[in-house]
Amino acid sequence: MSQNIPEKQWAMVIEKTGGPVEYKEIPVAKPGPDEVLVNIKYSGVCHTDLHAVNGDWPIPTKLPLVGGHEGAGVVVARGELVKDVEIGDHAGIKWLNGSCLACSFCQASDEMLCPKALLSGYTVDGTFQQYAIGKAAHVARIPKDVPLDAVSPVLCAGITVYKGLKESGAVPGQTVAIVGAGGGLGSLACQYAKAMGLQVIGIDTGAEKEKMVKEELGATAFVDFATSKNVVKDVQAATADGTGPHAVLLVAVNEKPFQQAAEYVRPRGTVVAIGLPAGAFLKAPVFETVIGMKTIKGSYVGNRKDTGEALDFFRRGLIKAPFKTIGMSELQKVYDLMHEGKIAGRYVVDTSK
Amino acid sequence: MSQNIPEKQWAMVIEKTGGPVEYKEIPVAKPGPDEVLVNIKYSGVCHTDLHAVNGDWPIPTKLPLVGGHEGAGVVVARGELVKDVEIGDHAGIKWLNGSCLACSFCQASDEMLCPKALLSGYTVDGTFQQYAIGKAAHVARIPKDVPLDAVSPVLCAGITVYKGLKESGAVPGQTVAIVGAGGGLGSLACQYAKAMGLQVIGIDTGAEKEKMVKEELGATAFVDFATSKNVVKDVQAATADGTGPHAVLLVAVNEKPFQQAAEYVRPRGTVVAIGLPAGAFLKAPVFETVIGMKTIKGSYVGNRKDTGEALDFFRRGLIKAPFKTIGMSELQKVYDLMHEGKIAGRYVVDTSK
Amino acid sequence: MSQNIPEKQWAMVIEKTGGPVEYKEIPVAKPGPDEVLVNIKYSGVCHTDLHAVNGDWPIPTKLPLVGGHEGAGVVVARGELVKDVEIGDHAGIKWLNGSCLACSFCQASDEMLCPKALLSGYTVDGTFQQYAIGKAAHVARIPKDVPLDAVSPVLCAGITVYKGLKESGAVPGQTVAIVGAGGGLGSLACQYAKAMGLQVIGIDTGAEKEKMVKEELGATAFVDFATSKNVVKDVQAATADGTGPHAVLLVAVNEKPFQQAAEYVRPRGTVVAIGLPAGAFLKAPVFETVIGMKTIKGSYVGNRKDTGEALDFFRRGLIKAPFKTIGMSELQKVYDLMHEGKIAGRYVVDTSK
Amino acid sequence: MSQNIPEKQWAMVIEKTGGPVEYKEIPVAKPGPDEVLVNIKYSGVCHTDLHAVNGDWPIPTKLPLVGGHEGAGVVVARGELVKDVEIGDHAGIKWLNGSCLACSFCQASDEMLCPKALLSGYTVDGTFQQYAIGKAAHVARIPKDVPLDAVSPVLCAGITVYKGLKESGAVPGQTVAIVGAGGGLGSLACQYAKAMGLQVIGIDTGAEKEKMVKEELGATAFVDFATSKNVVKDVQAATADGTGPHAVLLVAVNEKPFQQAAEYVRPRGTVVAIGLPAGAFLKAPVFETVIGMKTIKGSYVGNRKDTGEALDFFRRGLIKAPFKTIGMSELQKVYDLMHEGKIAGRYVVDTSK
Repeated sequence: MSQNIPEKQWAMVIEKTGGPVEYKEIPVAKPGPDEVLVNIKYSGVCHTDLHAVNGDWPIPTKLPLVGGHEGAGVVVARGELVKDVEIGDHAGIKWLNGSCLACSFCQASDEMLCPKALLSGYTVDGTFQQYAIGKAAHVARIPKDVPLDAVSPVLCAGITVYKGLKESGAVPGQTVAIVGAGGGLGSLACQYAKAMGLQVIGIDTGAEKEKMVKEELGATAFVDFATSKNVVKDVQAATADGTGPHAVLLVAVNEKPFQQAAEYVRPRGTVVAIGLPAGAFLKAPVFETVIGMKTIKGSYVGNRKDTGEALDFFRRGLIKAPFKTIGMSELQKVYDLMHEGKIAGRYVVDTSK
Repeated sequence: MSQNIPEKQWAMVIEKTGGPVEYKEIPVAKPGPDEVLVNIKYSGVCHTDLHAVNGDWPIPTKLPLVGGHEGAGVVVARGELVKDVEIGDHAGIKWLNGSCLACSFCQASDEMLCPKALLSGYTVDGTFQQYAIGKAAHVARIPKDVPLDAVSPVLCAGITVYKGLKESGAVPGQTVAIVGAGGGLGSLACQYAKAMGLQVIGIDTGAEKEKMVKEELGATAFVDFATSKNVVKDVQAATADGTGPHAVLLVAVNEKPFQQAAEYVRPRGTVVAIGLPAGAFLKAPVFETVIGMKTIKGSYVGNRKDTGEALDFFRRGLIKAPFKTIGMSELQKVYDLMHEGKIAGRYVVDTSK
Repeated sequence: MSQNIPEKQWAMVIEKTGGPVEYKEIPVAKPGPDEVLVNIKYSGVCHTDLHAVNGDWPIPTKLPLVGGHEGAGVVVARGELVKDVEIGDHAGIKWLNGSCLACSFCQASDEMLCPKALLSGYTVDGTFQQYAIGKAAHVARIPKDVPLDAVSPVLCAGITVYKGLKESGAVPGQTVAIVGAGGGLGSLACQYAKAMGLQVIGIDTGAEKEKMVKEELGATAFVDFATSKNVVKDVQAATADGTGPHAVLLVAVNEKPFQQAAEYVRPRGTVVAIGLPAGAFLKAPVFETVIGMKTIKGSYVGNRKDTGEALDFFRRGLIKAPFKTIGMSELQKVYDLMHEGKIAGRYVVDTSK
Repeated sequence: MSQNIPEKQWAMVIEKTGGPVEYKEIPVAKPGPDEVLVNIKYSGVCHTDLHAVNGDWPIPTKLPLVGGHEGAGVVVARGELVKDVEIGDHAGIKWLNGSCLACSFCQASDEMLCPKALLSGYTVDGTFQQYAIGKAAHVARIPKDVPLDAVSPVLCAGITVYKGLKESGAVPGQTVAIVGAGGGLGSLACQYAKAMGLQVIGIDTGAEKEKMVKEELGATAFVDFATSKNVVKDVQAATADGTGPHAVLLVAVNEKPFQQAAEYVRPRGTVVAIGLPAGAFLKAPVFETVIGMKTIKGSYVGNRKDTGEALDFFRRGLIKAPFKTIGMSELQKVYDLMHEGKIAGRYVVDTSK
């Protein structure tokens, strides 16, 4: 146990569903035998955090709650069973704080499906505090040459889109359409797709996003869903043989874009839905889905292996995730911007302020 | 060219959409360079044939039309390029009469997705005639120890459910639920599933079907969707760990059973829709589909490889497909029974009557 | 902690490489936070145990050593972190006693490749004692309706051959040749293969084995490697199209059978080597391997998921593993029989005698 | 049939095994119903052509023989059944001139394993002539914006290494070692691997090759097999976690490099052998292969789908294949250079000279 760990720390705490989130001093927790204590330096802010405040998802949060699940920092203490993580290592605490490692899902490397999964900033306290607890087997291993502020959004958004791309089954040389290509998740998805050898069709709206998607994010084509007269035809026309993309990644699932995706994806293609809008439905015509042998699937978050891989792409400089930094005490401002739909890029909170 | 091929033959012909189907003499066609002429002995009757008569699917049929796509018989002539099929071989003409063998789908063994696919009894004349044409590369090779009447329904129904089971991704030892287990396709699906080392939960209704599904078709459990108070719970309870089946095969896709299937399939599981009800939709909640990383997919018909495999299971005695035989000239009676929903088991027409 | 756990127990102990193995009283160990203590009732005896005594493998054993890695019994104590295993549960301790659950191999469900794997009866004490320690996440969960004596050989031999069959990539309906079909591993392999929907060609020698392999173990063909004039031709002739089996499982790898297997396996087929003869080599001609796109691979032991699956096949009555029971104190006799190559079937020791 | 097809043409012909190859006028063949006639403009020269001359492979060639199997040109005539290839299309004739499209291998898209496969410049006349015949379903479709001289070596060497990389199972982000990275096939392999999102360790010898492999071909590391004191250790050290590459591609299989590859590939990794040295053997120790669950496999050439994909990577500018052009009549000079091992890069013959 390191000597420098304080008894108290600053954290952003929600006392009841609906908020508000308050900046206050709370005790520093002690790691159990299979846990580590991470001195969080930076934590990204994700839409899921707002769902946790608002309580509008089917699963209830713990209360009071410290939110946050994109925390990057330095390991300062560890339990007696922990042998693979050293004091001083850089580590990330992500959405999946821990899992049982023994159920049939954990045995199959599908830890995100573990019925006993612990969710950071949701069912256990998260990373909007200076010292957070994580299960040692689950903390992300962050190489020391990776900046802790820049990497924090990768810990959720990056891993999630990377996993979605893997789940799509698209292989190098094939084409993937990314719906919402110019947004936070979408811009990461475009870059991961390119790094994975895929050809990208960005789908979003506006000249600014078109420019960014094609010039910065590496897409080979762009379809503006707002100005296109026929999105289905335009997306198919953007593929070499006119048959449509091999896969579609829907980073923000709404019903209309989903149904279009099921139409323009090529026969044998796969539509992957990520993102969790409350109450929305996937809907596709049976006839065309069967005749075209199309696949529709949901992808949630990555497992530990996906985490390591997604971080490695980032470490190699293939992924840029623009972000703005503000003090952790100003977290409510970020929530307000999110609420108003005014956010662009990712916000990262500095836990020291 | 064999000498015994007549100039004229008996066939069941539809002159216009909606029918009726008439028993009349028509000329015998001559095979092109890459085709064979098959003296059809028996042909199964499938719901698709009724759709062809009624013209209620999005794709138009040829007219006048000889229907039928489950024809089994003897090769009596072949074109000059044909080297792999001999005169006298037993062969089957199935839904997929031919395909280009050169497009990207054919190159990937997905012949059923070929944009130029020829469909027996739909876009080309089928097997409700005594002499039918098939592309040599596509006719099913039927071993001579297999009876031609019994095998005919396997040529469409059998291959289709076998393909659906392959598409489900379920592996030996896992559990698959079959919705409509006691019906024509369902009863074949149960037997193929068992032969593939899967555990089967039959879903259907009525004591008679329950008995058949469990005692004759090898299912380990049965859920009666009409009397069950909670189909989702009951299906999940029928699996060893209560988490639900690894896959669900919907042999007759309706909306309610589909939505239930998306619920009770276990996380990471796959719901396969086969069957083509006009105008129906697949619909599933985004949240549960994403959180559970569930897959929904359509499966159409098998390719040539699937055909050979499905026939081999049949040849080995692992599949029983009960059928009734009537003269081809009485085909309209079978359509009438289908129309009234009164059919049980498969009808096979004898082309000699 | 249950009250009935004694301080001392009987065990079979090796003090130095080469043996002998002695029956003596030793202390009962206490489980660590992530461990369970299992009251072993029965333990199978495996060739690997003899390698552990003889020290003829490249990896050294611990000393003094309690051997054994096919132990089945009842959980009598558990550490504070253990939540998924209850006192009174039936559990098995197998070759893979534990692994780090955190390295890249464990993350990918390849626990058997974990560089920190603990090996029962080799690098940690095993199951030739009345009370053995296992990592809770790794003990096999044995349903209570499964007899503990009969299941013990499944814990190593059964899992190993089941894994080998999975690694072969053979799918239901395909054909697998099993070299050594009449032996201990081979007879389990034949049964697992059949239960997985595969067709089996047994390869071994002698009329007695032929009868057993075909009549009891479900093989569709048998090739006697000693009397066959051309093993390669005879194995290929035993497949429906004469092209050879889709996969070959070599349960006891020797050089000659291996080279034959690489020859008779069909193009695109896979030869799986299991078993660990010291100093042997796999050898195959480049030209034929490349032209035929053949795959050769090694398969070691199963992971936890494979374990649960292999046990479930056994629980469902699809696998018979004949065994003889003797008192644990007579273990040396079993080693002697093994040494002389006189063993038939599996020996199981009763730890109470 | 186009009017401009001459009766006679220039070709390089071998009358008997061992050569010599003679420049002479021969008749222009007429395409059969399922064939096209291609006016070959350029043809790459491959080591296989030398094997065809020398007759040192187990399979005999036709005689007299026109060699060559990397021919690119313009379609000038087609048979009556050909519908997917137009007169004037650019097309490539590759090693696999045709296959039956009906056997179990063709049905599974493994045309290269078809027992009736026609091999250009080996069992049928190839591309060292001005007008060559190809089966329409098999000719490579070359987009018109791709130069015919530059693409010709891709038609064999490019497809072969691309297929080998696919067969390796390595996925984006993983590491592949390429043995012979600086040679003709190796330099293509490095570029394909990079375009597929893989990290590359080049293995070859000499400062010049090191510079090229790292600076031009995109490898992240280089190991000089001639100067390295321990190739196994050095290759493993070149991977991020020191465990070795996920796959190894051996573009010129010799025994020693092969055995090293089986050692340094990481557990669960795959060694892919391509290239066909007469009489060589793959050899690997059983113990390490089994314990490490390693896979060894042969990869021959690509199928039609691989061909299209490999050409698409080239069309997109991701692959550079340096070549020298000489007149077809000077082919013997290229053979002489090959014989002396003095060739660097690929030679392409211009059929007009």
